[in-house]
Amino acid sequence: MITIHDVAKKAGVSVATVSRVLNKNNSVSEKACIAVKKAVIELNYHPNANAKALVQNKTDTVGVVVTDVADPFFAILVKSVDKVADEHHKSILIGIGYHNELKEREAIETLLRKRCTCLVVHSKALSDRELGEYLDKIPGMVVINRIIEGYENRCVSLNNSKGSFIATEMLIKQKHQHIAYIGSNHKITDEFERLNGYLSALKTHNIPIVENAIVHNTPDFEGGEKAMIELLSYNANLTAVVAYNDTMAAGAISILNENNIQVPQQFSIVGFDDMPISRYLIPKLTTIRYPIDLMATYAANLALSLVDEDINTPVVSKFNPTLVRRFSTGICHKV
Amino acid sequence: MITIHDVAKKAGVSVATVSRVLNKNNSVSEKACIAVKKAVIELNYHPNANAKALVQNKTDTVGVVVTDVADPFFAILVKSVDKVADEHHKSILIGIGYHNELKEREAIETLLRKRCTCLVVHSKALSDRELGEYLDKIPGMVVINRIIEGYENRCVSLNNSKGSFIATEMLIKQKHQHIAYIGSNHKITDEFERLNGYLSALKTHNIPIVENAIVHNTPDFEGGEKAMIELLSYNANLTAVVAYNDTMAAGAISILNENNIQVPQQFSIVGFDDMPISRYLIPKLTTIRYPIDLMATYAANLALSLVDEDINTPVVSKFNPTLVRRFSTGICHKV
Repeated sequence: MITIHDVAKKAGVSVATVSRVLNKNNSVSEKACIAVKKAVIELNYHPNANAKALVQNKTDTVGVVVTDVADPFFAILVKSVDKVADEHHKSILIGIGYHNELKEREAIETLLRKRCTCLVVHSKALSDRELGEYLDKIPGMVVINRIIEGYENRCVSLNNSKGSFIATEMLIKQKHQHIAYIGSNHKITDEFERLNGYLSALKTHNIPIVENAIVHNTPDFEGGEKAMIELLSYNANLTAVVAYNDTMAAGAISILNENNIQVPQQFSIVGFDDMPISRYLIPKLTTIRYPIDLMATYAANLALSLVDEDINTPVVSKFNPTLVRRFSTGICHKV
Repeated sequence: MITIHDVAKKAGVSVATVSRVLNKNNSVSEKACIAVKKAVIELNYHPNANAKALVQNKTDTVGVVVTDVADPFFAILVKSVDKVADEHHKSILIGIGYHNELKEREAIETLLRKRCTCLVVHSKALSDRELGEYLDKIPGMVVINRIIEGYENRCVSLNNSKGSFIATEMLIKQKHQHIAYIGSNHKITDEFERLNGYLSALKTHNIPIVENAIVHNTPDFEGGEKAMIELLSYNANLTAVVAYNDTMAAGAISILNENNIQVPQQFSIVGFDDMPISRYLIPKLTTIRYPIDLMATYAANLALSLVDEDINTPVVSKFNPTLVRRFSTGICHKV
């Protein structure tokens, strides 16, 4: 295989000179430049992409760390980063963290070994301190769905509390007085914030908290089913639920349906995230839109702009949760 | 290892001429050009990624080409390959092809430049010939969800026809006589095979094809909605539908629900793929399981074993579609 050494020998220059020419560094004489280009063509030399990344600061690969690519939320995140990378003729490398401290660290370290200088990282298991150290070490790293103090301008996040506040307030305005909350049993900030938004809306409107109306389970369909069963077992007078995400809401609706409780005539339910599933359910789910596609696009552009001065810094954006009103919520007729 | 010098010698031209031909430089005589191309083919010479050299360099990255990572089917494929890679302390690099010939080719080429010697490729837009050439060039490449003649042992696929045959036959045994088919308007073999399985089951059981009962649309929720509207507009006596995939089935159920047609009491529907959505629907969807997780696991193990003699070749597996009976199908009571 033809190496950079062969090119240098043929061109009669040093390896360093060849490298400079290949990297479009101007501090090379025109004569040397022509000799190198000629040698490259004659030898049909193709610099190894990895080797190229080694000598350049610019990478042609954007690294993405997500929790689980089979979860639609993260699949949309990955797809959005890929679209941005593609626009800049770059590809993406994916690390999967599975909400696990060791795996998240390993995912970041692997991407670094692969010379990804741009990283979009979704991490929930690593500490603020450790992520801060990575942010110091990797100038092209951006954190998504989390804020690390001192690095706010490299963090892209959503106000989760506001989202569930809006959801709960809408139910209150529909005259619901007995509103439950189905949360995730993953101890991550998203859960604390969403629960807080729910509690805060109740407090703002002087609605008392119902006993045994806050339950937690795995943030998936089965978890939503179990949580709804628990709620129904404890409470006879509930009329509405705020769910941690759309998939849990889907599980809850499934249980309500099995118990012949009509949604929304007898029971209202609000999801969170606005994943595709929310449009597939019967009735279609009222939910809070989490603009992960826009946020991931912004994060990828930001990460690229941090390592490549030819790429403009995107206009700083704040992202807001918004209510998507569909057919799983309605006026409460129960007194 | 075949080098550019071997090509030059065989073609009876200089190395520079070979290089010019490979780089599509026009300043070469037609005769020389033909001689070079012939030598390249006869010697199986690959300038960008010399396969043999790559095999000797074990890679730590497995490349995966999928159509769209935001589609749960492909997200599960990617996750399964990642699990296998992780077991071998390797990571994955993803290329997205979007059912587009140029993008699929670019995805494979990018992974090659990244020195991925192992590839799991899902391609629908490239020709058999071109994929065959890639299979020749890349000893560690495996094709998933498609069979390329001559490379059957490096292709992992499912008998799609058998899947929709089983689905249709189950409906026939439930006494349905007016069974429609909702297909995908992507002109890919999966669609042709699934339609064939449906037709073949009708023929086997001497059930006549209903006029205007075969419709096509985009293979997503909205496509399923539109297809179901079309079917209802044309036909008053249909009692069942075989759908191309679960998402289209979900769209169809949504329309049936809006029209107060009870599933399964008045209308039965069968999906295909057994994606998570099939368990979230009301009623839970009867469908055909497409074991993409098992198939992708096998494909990844096979690809790794092809380039790394320390990794055992997985036991050759054939994959079969199976019926998952849930609650969207039932006995037909209409005469």
